[in-house]
Amino acid sequence: MREREREMASLNDVSTKGKVINCNAAVVWGPGKPFVIEEIQVEPPQNMEVRVKILYTSICHTDLNAWKGENESQQAFPRVLGHEAAGIIESVGEGVLDMKEGDHVVPIFNGECGDCVYCTSEKTNLCEKFRVNPMKSVMFNDGKTRFSTLDRKPIYHFLNTSTFSEYTVLDSGCVVKIDSKASLKKMSLLSCCISTGLGAVWNTANVQGGSTLAIFGLGAVGLAVAEGARSRGASRIIGVDINPEKFIKGRAMGITDFINPKDLEIYVHEKIWEMTEGGVDYSFECAGNLDVLREAFLSTHDGWGLTVILGIHPSPRMLPLHPMELFDGRRLTGTVFGDFKGKSQLPNLALQCMNGASISRLVNLDEFITHELPFSKINEAFKLLTNGESLRCLLHL
Amino acid sequence: MREREREMASLNDVSTKGKVINCNAAVVWGPGKPFVIEEIQVEPPQNMEVRVKILYTSICHTDLNAWKGENESQQAFPRVLGHEAAGIIESVGEGVLDMKEGDHVVPIFNGECGDCVYCTSEKTNLCEKFRVNPMKSVMFNDGKTRFSTLDRKPIYHFLNTSTFSEYTVLDSGCVVKIDSKASLKKMSLLSCCISTGLGAVWNTANVQGGSTLAIFGLGAVGLAVAEGARSRGASRIIGVDINPEKFIKGRAMGITDFINPKDLEIYVHEKIWEMTEGGVDYSFECAGNLDVLREAFLSTHDGWGLTVILGIHPSPRMLPLHPMELFDGRRLTGTVFGDFKGKSQLPNLALQCMNGASISRLVNLDEFITHELPFSKINEAFKLLTNGESLRCLLHL
Ligand SMILES: NC(=O)c1ccc[n+]([C@@H]2O[C@H](COP(=O)([O-])OP(=O)(O)OC[C@H]3O[C@@H](n4cnc5c(N)ncnc54)[C@H](O)[C@@H]3O)[C@@H](O)[C@H]2O)c1
Ligand SMILES: NC(=O)c1ccc[n+]([C@@H]2O[C@H](COP(=O)([O-])OP(=O)(O)OC[C@H]3O[C@@H](n4cnc5c(N)ncnc54)[C@H](O)[C@@H]3O)[C@@H](O)[C@H]2O)c1
Ligand SMILES: [Zn+2]
Ligand SMILES: [Zn+2]
Ligand SMILES: [Zn+2]
Ligand SMILES: [Zn+2]
Repeated sequence: MREREREMASLNDVSTKGKVINCNAAVVWGPGKPFVIEEIQVEPPQNMEVRVKILYTSICHTDLNAWKGENESQQAFPRVLGHEAAGIIESVGEGVLDMKEGDHVVPIFNGECGDCVYCTSEKTNLCEKFRVNPMKSVMFNDGKTRFSTLDRKPIYHFLNTSTFSEYTVLDSGCVVKIDSKASLKKMSLLSCCISTGLGAVWNTANVQGGSTLAIFGLGAVGLAVAEGARSRGASRIIGVDINPEKFIKGRAMGITDFINPKDLEIYVHEKIWEMTEGGVDYSFECAGNLDVLREAFLSTHDGWGLTVILGIHPSPRMLPLHPMELFDGRRLTGTVFGDFKGKSQLPNLALQCMNGASISRLVNLDEFITHELPFSKINEAFKLLTNGESLRCLLHL
Repeated sequence: MREREREMASLNDVSTKGKVINCNAAVVWGPGKPFVIEEIQVEPPQNMEVRVKILYTSICHTDLNAWKGENESQQAFPRVLGHEAAGIIESVGEGVLDMKEGDHVVPIFNGECGDCVYCTSEKTNLCEKFRVNPMKSVMFNDGKTRFSTLDRKPIYHFLNTSTFSEYTVLDSGCVVKIDSKASLKKMSLLSCCISTGLGAVWNTANVQGGSTLAIFGLGAVGLAVAEGARSRGASRIIGVDINPEKFIKGRAMGITDFINPKDLEIYVHEKIWEMTEGGVDYSFECAGNLDVLREAFLSTHDGWGLTVILGIHPSPRMLPLHPMELFDGRRLTGTVFGDFKGKSQLPNLALQCMNGASISRLVNLDEFITHELPFSKINEAFKLLTNGESLRCLLHL
């Protein structure tokens, strides 16, 4: 109850609608440089945009990649990173009819315009306008930023979201309204890791009961995969990580067997073949490493194995697979945001998660928030993730 | 009628059952060396094997690869190549109950034992015992060859079949009985190219009416894909080949548009995007070339495109795709023998093709046999394929 009151009270009494807001953001000035909490200016939302007061945000490995500026496309600096969050609509721009001031929302980095050839197809969740595009650092409407320094120099956007700021401006296609009775703290997880992991199992792979699977990389994304597999009645869930600390949480999430590649003298896929008489039905790559991807691919059973790639691979290396290896009947596919169409499907997922019974049966959302810190300690939160100590560290704004 | 009489009469009057047969075969003595028609010895079939009198055989590009010995695994010489054929059972080994002397049969290089974990699964046509294995050059039973020179030196087998011989010994799991009223000439095509191409469309991709597709490489395999797509009611079939001679046949097979990459100043995939508003639903790689594979992959529509790889890639190069390219929703998969389970499904496919009406509506089998030559002219037949002059040149034994 206390939490919700705070959320509601946190909207300004004096309306800021239509005005530039001065607020704090964590700005990155160059690849790998520390976050600087500083005052910035946030413009009002334009046509079909909304301005959101961010209450909670956490850090995903994808932020880590962008922060390091691992590929040149991500080198738009100064920049406001962050894409996993929850907040409240401060104001909406012209034409926005599905949300209004005060609505509880989560941003989605893979938006849904609802109208394009992709959005109107059942087959994909990639929107023409608001799909993930690491090159994009400005708003769709006018190719400009809504963030600037106090002396009016542009600060760039990130991944349609930019949640490391007290206020952010998003296209309304990248914002999902959530039932106001849901805990915004937990709902922030739907913004990325939970939806991505569950969706990879439910939508992309459509794992059936009794299946076997292996998860490579047991961060929040990999563990969300485990939750999805458990909820589908998988018979065996093998977790692979070089950090055995992850096995503790993993067990709570339903992982049945653990492999630390460092303990093996054989390849991980050979170990998995041994354990499963020839391989698992599905594997999920959640480490963002190409050598891991190859092991994940080979660890599935030939004839029907499917590997789902969730990890982001900033390396310029090509796929380490020979074309003839695809003739053994192993398939692989990438997934963005777990193939969820965010605006259409997330409100329902949120409802499922809200229900107390479902929370424990469906997804242990609480287990994913391992740390909480004030926004000002964002650099510390980054270190927790880099060091593999946290799953998600929730920053309070 | 004349053809069938000849087929029936061609079995020896004096039984050869249980005896070594001396007969002619086209033996290759080293990579790229000419075929030498010479007398060899063919042993009787052992347990679960059959000996087949080959009446017709043709040459597939896969024979060409093996003949060149393009990868070390294929360097078992002397060897009897060939896998696309039709013939009559001369005798069966112990335990063979589903076929007998005189039965009309086609060999299948991707066999079906019926019992293994793969054969009993609905999900794959790869048999544990008789799947394609380019390393394999001996029989399953005893690891020995059934072919030898007159001075008893072993001659190696190829792809479970070795059809460039008047008599060959095969595992019964690699032989399919065909209705004796079917034309064996035409049925030989079911042995590889037709089944592979049709199956890639019907089974692997499961192309639906109204779909668009692009076929890269218009040899017999690529044109069989076109036939499969036409029979499924594809709305647009784009054929890509560097040899414009192939476009003539292609038109008869229902290909609606042609692209010769040599005529373009842009990438083929860019041209296809232009022609189809963003790409085809399916592409089929039937050229066995990695650069072509990349174009085929990119030519599909992002969000839902599927590329089916049929071409055999002897190059040691890895897949020329970046992992992040899989995040655009394009998928790719390999297919062996069009995902047909040969023993279970080919008899029915043969029946469908036998029916005059179906032949024209379903598959123009006749169009695939562009040349016919006596077995002795096998070197000439190889040249026809290498030069892109033939689809299939049927050799008469
Ligand atoms: N596809 C999408 O839509 C999407 C969405 C969110 C995140 N991601 C990506 O998913 C991946 C995981 O994200 P996260 O936030 O869970 O990251 P994380 O850093 O919390 O977890 C990664 C895990 O992988 C483990 N790991 C690292 N190297 C390994 C190796 N060689 N073998 C086995 N395990 C290894 C680490 O110990 C860690 O536990 C990242 O690449 C991220 O960019 C993709
Ligand atoms: N997967 C299987 O089960 C299976 C079965 C049979 C054949 N195959 C393979 O399928 C492929 C085709 O076999 P085929 O017998 O039809 O061969 P083919 O030689 O008759 O036809 C290949 C065609 O590709 C064209 N081509 C070559 N380079 C090209 C390029 N750069 N761009 C466009 N077109 C190009 C040629 O002009 C030719 O028309 C071969 O690689 C063969 O090994 C696979
Ligand atoms: Zn994320
Ligand atoms: Zn859209
Ligand atoms: Zn073939
Ligand atoms: Zn089998």
